[in-house]
Amino acid sequence: MNPARRAFLRLLALGSGALAACRAKAPAPVQSLLGAPISPYGERSPFVQSARQTFESTRTPEQAASLTPLADTYGIITPSSLHFERHHSGVPKIDPAQHRLLIHGMVNRPLILTMEELQRLPSMSRIHFLECSGNSNTGWRPTPRPTVQAAHGLTSCSEWTGVKLSLLLDEVGVQPGASWILAEGGDPAKMTRSIPLAKAMDDAMLAYAQNGEPLRPEQGFPLRLFLPGWEGNSNVKWLRRLKIVDQPYMTREETSKYTDLMPDGRARQFTLVMDAKSVVTHPSGGRRLAAAGFHEITGIAWTGRGRVTRVEVTTNGGATWQDAVLQDPVLPRAHTRFRLGWEWNGSDATIASRVTDDTGYVQPTRAELVAIRGVNSNYHNNMIQAWKVNHDGTVEYAVL
Amino acid sequence: MNPARRAFLRLLALGSGALAACRAKAPAPVQSLLGAPISPYGERSPFVQSARQTFESTRTPEQAASLTPLADTYGIITPSSLHFERHHSGVPKIDPAQHRLLIHGMVNRPLILTMEELQRLPSMSRIHFLECSGNSNTGWRPTPRPTVQAAHGLTSCSEWTGVKLSLLLDEVGVQPGASWILAEGGDPAKMTRSIPLAKAMDDAMLAYAQNGEPLRPEQGFPLRLFLPGWEGNSNVKWLRRLKIVDQPYMTREETSKYTDLMPDGRARQFTLVMDAKSVVTHPSGGRRLAAAGFHEITGIAWTGRGRVTRVEVTTNGGATWQDAVLQDPVLPRAHTRFRLGWEWNGSDATIASRVTDDTGYVQPTRAELVAIRGVNSNYHNNMIQAWKVNHDGTVEYAVL
Repeated sequence: MNPARRAFLRLLALGSGALAACRAKAPAPVQSLLGAPISPYGERSPFVQSARQTFESTRTPEQAASLTPLADTYGIITPSSLHFERHHSGVPKIDPAQHRLLIHGMVNRPLILTMEELQRLPSMSRIHFLECSGNSNTGWRPTPRPTVQAAHGLTSCSEWTGVKLSLLLDEVGVQPGASWILAEGGDPAKMTRSIPLAKAMDDAMLAYAQNGEPLRPEQGFPLRLFLPGWEGNSNVKWLRRLKIVDQPYMTREETSKYTDLMPDGRARQFTLVMDAKSVVTHPSGGRRLAAAGFHEITGIAWTGRGRVTRVEVTTNGGATWQDAVLQDPVLPRAHTRFRLGWEWNGSDATIASRVTDDTGYVQPTRAELVAIRGVNSNYHNNMIQAWKVNHDGTVEYAVL
Repeated sequence: MNPARRAFLRLLALGSGALAACRAKAPAPVQSLLGAPISPYGERSPFVQSARQTFESTRTPEQAASLTPLADTYGIITPSSLHFERHHSGVPKIDPAQHRLLIHGMVNRPLILTMEELQRLPSMSRIHFLECSGNSNTGWRPTPRPTVQAAHGLTSCSEWTGVKLSLLLDEVGVQPGASWILAEGGDPAKMTRSIPLAKAMDDAMLAYAQNGEPLRPEQGFPLRLFLPGWEGNSNVKWLRRLKIVDQPYMTREETSKYTDLMPDGRARQFTLVMDAKSVVTHPSGGRRLAAAGFHEITGIAWTGRGRVTRVEVTTNGGATWQDAVLQDPVLPRAHTRFRLGWEWNGSDATIASRVTDDTGYVQPTRAELVAIRGVNSNYHNNMIQAWKVNHDGTVEYAVL
């Protein structure tokens, strides 16, 4: 019997804590009035109020980001309504009947496709995370963000459906010497990124659906580029143009933004693959444990390089680590839910998680990350993040 | 190269059909006005209008069913807002802070749990279909329902999160001689089913979340019984009471309803496991193919007994069958998405799918099903269902 299960049974059998007290309570009332009728498109209960939260740097809500409430999510699928957002000039309202994708540049047969034509082509579906490379950049800052939503909420996970980009590239006939693709969005900012041709020929998708229905407007309706495991910004939304070229175009998003200033004054650029990361979502900052006794520690882990193979959890500030249980299915480049039973004795405790991926890479501590990267970065922070559970049950940000 | 891919490339390379014509079109316009701001809980595009549809037998919208628009869904996850519904007395509005689950009867330590207490316990997540056993009963009728939504829309697939029921049963101490559980809902109808104890001790869950957020009200918020692979009605919603007993209670839902009248005048009862089924969702009844040429045939397959191992598709009324591609991940007791490329020559064609599961069971034709079950049933019809594509591109219901 595993420790979590033993602790749980002990809890109930001994009659300690809240579970025993509940035996005296009355059963749930039976509703006596007829309930609500069937509906064409359901909504959540009015008692559920979790919401995306504005990122601290937001000055205008159209040039803004919002964060997934990770402490209130379950499993690996993020509800589309709570998928994090990042917009440069607001969410355009695009009529799919008017939308077109242009593929041109160093190709033999340039092509313009309607959405209807794209959706006639062979399709694929994949469950993948999408993470902004600015996620958890609180780790670079002197003043930490206090909750898991504020600190880590720029990652979400969905089932994406669309067309494999390489199918279309084969068709247009990429010319010798081509090595990059310039991907341009149809939003007013014309958000543009340079994408290595190798990724486009590998697993890149032109995604038109998310979690079983058409893309949400905030996620690029009717069409986005989807690059499994790569930084969110490169997954260009409202995609209108792919130009096949022979060099990166050094757009704003890959020079002024999304680069990492190193200790020697040079910048890391095109660091597109998101490294392995994990975070405990419960218990987490801003929440409170009601009482000592059994609690389940849970969280998510992911890696842009493949699959999560191991998540370890510490409850004593890193002195010792235990393997968490990984929830099946563990999918490549997807959030992986982990869980570990914990009997909290009511004393101060510092908890954290550490992921290993199938390349053998282990999530670094802050000290290990800073030793290589310095402290001048704003993006690509994947350090181990801890939470301190205080003896009164309150939980706050901590660093191992 | 597989046939689908060859057909696709031929289509574009030869310049036939709509894809070639599109080369003359203009690229997508660039938006010039600032778009919508970030939002706390996103909504779908106003251009997307897919909706649940009322089941034909519905007389009042509170004692009613609604159907998932399968022709408009993608991948394997059904959006929670489009999950099929079946209510006996409307959707109750339950305050989770007031909700309780009572476990009593033949147990040593009866227990009442609050939602907060339940959510402290060890949890699990699973992606599973849920299907009403009245789904696709159009197969028993002389007048078929014309669309895949009307004929098959009482099945949906979600990621469910909750507590393993056996954990709690171990705790309350089931007494010798107990063999069934009476599960009662908190809706005004007090919907009640008898569940074999063996299923409860196996993989049954007390589910409180669906697709990453709390259960939707139509799916039992705040708590439902979830029995992987078993008929929808037995997955009692708004769960308030589990009574451990030594016999089935012969409730309305397992006598008057959900039984199958056999040719010899006796009824099959407690046929709880949903047999393997598949259906083509595109092309499907009521839709129209715009032109001859490449089309992707796609659909879903599932089985209550385990995993889908094979889906075959015919495009010539059953004369020959081809293996469809199964989309990874193929999960036990979950919808499995299948796909097959098809070059339509513009003539009449009858298409259908046939699933095999890992018990070796093969989905029957109507004739094979009727030979055993007769024609007096209303539930549990899993026959192969065909669609006839007419030469003008219209699609209608057909039987192989």
